Amino acid sequence: MEPLVRLRLDVSYDGTDFSGWAAQPTRRTVAGCLQEALAVLVGDLPLGLTVAGRTDAGVHATGQVCHIDLPAAVYEGLRASLVRRLAALMPPDARVKAVTEVPATFDARFSATWRRYEYRVADVPWGPEPLRRRDTLGWVRPLDLDRLRAAAAGLVGEHDFAAYCKRKDNATTVRAITHLDWHRAADGVAIATVQADAFCQAMVRSLVGAMLAVGDGRREPAWPAALLRRTERSSEVTVAPAHGLTLVAVGYPAESEYATRADATRRLRVSPPVAP
Amino acid sequence: MEPLVRLRLDVSYDGTDFSGWAAQPTRRTVAGCLQEALAVLVGDLPLGLTVAGRTDAGVHATGQVCHIDLPAAVYEGLRASLVRRLAALMPPDARVKAVTEVPATFDARFSATWRRYEYRVADVPWGPEPLRRRDTLGWVRPLDLDRLRAAAAGLVGEHDFAAYCKRKDNATTVRAITHLDWHRAADGVAIATVQADAFCQAMVRSLVGAMLAVGDGRREPAWPAALLRRTERSSEVTVAPAHGLTLVAVGYPAESEYATRADATRRLRVSPPVAP
Repeated sequence: MEPLVRLRLDVSYDGTDFSGWAAQPTRRTVAGCLQEALAVLVGDLPLGLTVAGRTDAGVHATGQVCHIDLPAAVYEGLRASLVRRLAALMPPDARVKAVTEVPATFDARFSATWRRYEYRVADVPWGPEPLRRRDTLGWVRPLDLDRLRAAAAGLVGEHDFAAYCKRKDNATTVRAITHLDWHRAADGVAIATVQADAFCQAMVRSLVGAMLAVGDGRREPAWPAALLRRTERSSEVTVAPAHGLTLVAVGYPAESEYATRADATRRLRVSPPVAP
Repeated sequence: MEPLVRLRLDVSYDGTDFSGWAAQPTRRTVAGCLQEALAVLVGDLPLGLTVAGRTDAGVHATGQVCHIDLPAAVYEGLRASLVRRLAALMPPDARVKAVTEVPATFDARFSATWRRYEYRVADVPWGPEPLRRRDTLGWVRPLDLDRLRAAAAGLVGEHDFAAYCKRKDNATTVRAITHLDWHRAADGVAIATVQADAFCQAMVRSLVGAMLAVGDGRREPAWPAALLRRTERSSEVTVAPAHGLTLVAVGYPAESEYATRADATRRLRVSPPVAP
């Protein structure tokens, strides 16, 4: 069998005009655009394209990570020019910022130890700054940063986020949020930063929706944490719109840990919770 | 005659889909959109809309300033809700961020003492970050910040910028640049900041075009300043594209100086230079 080279691709996109990351037959998706561009360069090879965070329609990324496998001989001819050639082949709203050779034990999805997202909200009566309207939610009611932070503090830690997740069969909704906080940027935009080992679908947007209800005074700061006692998705939580959300970074362990981490993650995510 | 109230409007826009500021019969312009929105609120009144910087097609603003005059009685009914109602009536790519009552001596154009612009350039092989591609120029050759700064330093001061201006009859091309420098933002984007009493048409984009030729090594750092000896527009200068440019702020003197400053500016701009 021909030897393969595994490549890590660092990817950015403006999600506005994409139906999310994952390739779909009739829709414009980031993975679809990337696969089309790669097909021009390498032909009809199986790539094994695997992504760290399968973002939903309208969600952006400045720090997405994925991996592909290429025959070593094919990659050799592309090594020096791959980033530049992909830049010429891909649309301006999706960019491959770096291509790095990685060991075969690296798995963009399962080796990842954390994902970090940001959610941007402009709470001024005139709405988001026009040049940032694609990645900033407008919120007509003023937001109290102290209340947002109090709500955020109650959500940090390992919890069953069932209230904030679309449930899938045989998949745990236990996740560990290591960081969740709000700050205001120099231009006044309120930004939530949230980091966890992983997120289930629409989880960040559900958390933000719950916190916004606290931030504008409609709910008490203890309410989002209280929902963690629920065992299924809460209809009281409004999922915040996709366009405020950006995947900004994905973290990986040291190279020697790629395989161990991937094995552990696979076991954890696919089995039902063990006890009680 | 009915008493008038003069209002200062602070305006932001994403210039991508506008044919510039100034109203034109068949084109979508920022002034046109603003006048249409105001007409819904106040009817077919003469507004005397006057702007600080008549930006060209494709140029953005986060700190544009203009003024209008409204009959006091009409304004009284709108005072509490004008910003919110304009936000609802205007498209998301143009926003009125603030409305302030000012003395009748305030003139958005002629009272202004300085204008500040920023020009954003991403000099990486993969191009601008997708979410900032609307206000960031992609430059395939790497830029040397030291060379850009050396080029910039030679342009600061009061000079005849004829080489960098579209000449108009009876209009001086003497301008005073008080600040011109380059820095890299945290994400690596090279940003030129330039401040002057005023600019002639396409002047900032011409200056940036000349400096980029220095920054990527095609011209010597002394070249942009040497062009200041020319008495007419230089065909050697490439005008940088509009979409990298944003008007970020306009400065005004203390209220007591509005009228004096406006008179002085009017005299200066419309008369030919007095002496050699």
